[in-house]
Formats: sequence, C-alpha cells, structure tokens
Amino acid sequence: MELLDALTTTRAIRRYAQEPIPEHDLNRILFAATRAPSGSNRQPCRFVVLRSESTAPSAVRARQILGEAFRSMWAAKEAGDGYRSGTGTDPASPKSRMAATMRHFVDHIEFAPAIIFPCYQRWREPDPSEGASIYPACQNLLLAARDLGYGGVMTVWHRPVETALRTALHMPDDVVIAATIPLGRPLGRHGTVRRRPLAEVVFEDRWKHTATWAADPPGTRVTAGRPA
Amino acid sequence: MELLDALTTTRAIRRYAQEPIPEHDLNRILFAATRAPSGSNRQPCRFVVLRSESTAPSAVRARQILGEAFRSMWAAKEAGDGYRSGTGTDPASPKSRMAATMRHFVDHIEFAPAIIFPCYQRWREPDPSEGASIYPACQNLLLAARDLGYGGVMTVWHRPVETALRTALHMPDDVVIAATIPLGRPLGRHGTVRRRPLAEVVFEDRWKHTATWAADPPGTRVTAGRPA
Repeated sequence: MELLDALTTTRAIRRYAQEPIPEHDLNRILFAATRAPSGSNRQPCRFVVLRSESTAPSAVRARQILGEAFRSMWAAKEAGDGYRSGTGTDPASPKSRMAATMRHFVDHIEFAPAIIFPCYQRWREPDPSEGASIYPACQNLLLAARDLGYGGVMTVWHRPVETALRTALHMPDDVVIAATIPLGRPLGRHGTVRRRPLAEVVFEDRWKHTATWAADPPGTRVTAGRPA
Repeated sequence: MELLDALTTTRAIRRYAQEPIPEHDLNRILFAATRAPSGSNRQPCRFVVLRSESTAPSAVRARQILGEAFRSMWAAKEAGDGYRSGTGTDPASPKSRMAATMRHFVDHIEFAPAIIFPCYQRWREPDPSEGASIYPACQNLLLAARDLGYGGVMTVWHRPVETALRTALHMPDDVVIAATIPLGRPLGRHGTVRRRPLAEVVFEDRWKHTATWAADPPGTRVTAGRPA
C-alpha cells in the first residue's frame, strides 16, 4: 500500500481471527522491522516470536504468563480509570466499547496468531533514550504487518511479569523485553486514528510557538487524549 | 511510494541540499509523525521545528548550540573509535568514507533545511519504556520525509547540551528532548541498508532458538554492526 496512507491510518488492532500467520509473511514482517535504524547501527534489537501453532513448552508457558498478567492489568485499569462509572454504564458509549475491546483482548491474548517480543540487548546503563534503537523497529514491524493484511498493537503490559517471562523464554538478565506485540488478521472494522490537533503539538522556533503551517487536513478526527 | 520498499530501504541521510522545505511538506511530515501510536493514546510527543530560513533568536541560538555540541561529539568519537588509525588511514576505506560523511554532517548541521526536536512531555518518573510513546513517531517522521523526497537521521547527540537547548527554546523542565532529526533533500546517492543476518536476531519459541523462516532475501547485504 501507499506509504503515507499507511503512516496516517495504521491503528491499534486488538481482535484477531484464529488464523496462523504463514512463515513467508512473518519473514517479511521481521525483515522490515530489522531494517529500522539504531544508534551507530549497533542493532541491539532481538525478536522472540511465539506462533499460535507452537507447542514448545517455553512458548506455551510464556503465553500463559502473559494472559494472567494482561487480565490483572486490565482489571486494575478498569476499576481505577472509571470504566464502570459515568458513561461507562451506557453500553453504547465509547468508554464501554473500549472496555469491551480491552476485555476481549486480555481474554484472548494467549491465542493471538503471533506474539512478538522485541528485546533490547543492553550494553550500557538503562537510559530513556535507549528506546531510539528499538521502538523504530517496532513501528516498522506494525507497518509491515499492515501492508500484509495484519494488525497488532504495541504494549508494555508484560512489564510486571518480565522476570517470569525471561525465565520461561531462557533469556539472559541483560536482555530487556521492550514490548509485547500480538499480531493477526483483524476481526471487525478498523476505526479512525484520532489525535490531538496538530497545532497543539507542533511548534516552530521555540516551545509553544505555533507553526502557522501546522493545521490538520480537512476532515481529520481529533481527540484530546489524556492529560500528558 | 510502496510501504514495504520504504520500510526496507530508508537509511540515514547526513548531507542535504541547501533548499528550504516548503510548509506544505513539513505539514505532511509532521501530520504523519503524530499519527504514530502512544501508550493509552496519551500523546506525550511534541515537536519543535527549526527551519533554515528562520531568523528567530531562539532558533539561531539553538542551531549554534547544536553545531558546537555535534562537533565536540564527533571529535571525541573520531579519536576514541580509531577513525584515524588502521584502515582509517586509507581514504578509500569504508571507515574513512564514514568519517568524511560525519565531518561534513557536524560541520553543516546548523544549515540543515529543517531541524526537528521530538520532545517528550514527561508525566511519570523517567523510564526506558517511555520511548515506546515517542520513537515510533520519529520513525513515521523519517518515513514520511522519504516519501516526499527528503532524508534525515535520528540522533541523540544533543544530549550533552540538552539543558542549554531547553533554555534557548524556552522549554519547561519536564520536557525531554528525545532526539534531534535534521531533514533535507539528500545530496549524493543513497547507499544500502545493511544489517545483521536475520537469523542472528529473530528467534522462535525461546531465546536463541533459530526461526527456520528467518532468512534474508537473496542479495541482502549484511554487516555485523558493533558488538551489542
């Protein structure tokens, strides 16, 4: 598909058809991911792929750990973020629909056709900028998947169980699981990508100085997002 | 251009024609950047854009700070990483050509047609995973630029002077400059993206367990990269 279309319309997909991803497609997705840049081309990224058809004990165990963790995370978030109060009591509200999607997501995460763990082989002290050498690859991965008809979402909800996952997957201690990305053929329709108005986030010359050219194209759907 | 082609062939561009980037193109590039995902769609990214035609004191000052910093960084790296010894003494060697590109890059960084600072509005303690909400946008930005005929590179060489830059750009203390991305029309030809062999970085079921389908397409050029 056209690059700019893909960049502007790829969104999180959390419901997948129960259909394995052929090796040929996984190959193309991972190849695209690994072409992303990294600092000094050091290439500290590694990818551990779990496919739904695998019966390897390590993969089965990792999926199980992930399922339990995701359901706990969602239970806490659902209660803490008021998904069951206010408009959350109206089943037709955006909040309720989001909650239904999330419930389906955490209840089925074990069965995602592929679960990919992008990992970071650390070579110096932990630092917020280290993500510059791994998350571009994650974005390439999601975009390549889109091109081949798949969808996914990047999450860090594995973090509370990262140590257990590392043990299950036989990973050394200096390797960080930077994200969890489930992938599959999307079920249902894609919604629209909604973001803050461009003028709120793009400045020229200095902080908060609006760039006159930073306007959304007509018809762009916006959302305030959460307070940052 | 085709999405998969862009994902697999976009590489760092460090030499730019002295040609301003029209507002219309900057708009499309930044729009694409801001469509990237972020955790809970919180959208903590902001972008400060410096255009070569701007005479705003904040922009002029920030470019100056950046130029000095990049030249210091390169001087240290050139000496420390042996760019002047071994094959570095042969002007035709890859090492020498890389050094020449880097020297040109740091000597001209002030004059890049656009310099973009993707910033992260922090809302919790610094954490290596926060990059998951900003570096996908940086990759979208570089890919969109490519589509429109521009090239750039993501670097974190501004970090030693981040405080000075923050002051010059009137930025509050809770905003992190996550990267520096110069952009412009590429001078000279694009080289090939070279990465480690896919089988070295993609595993199945568990750490270091080779995925049989993780093979590079015929003709792929590989590099060991640095030790990770």
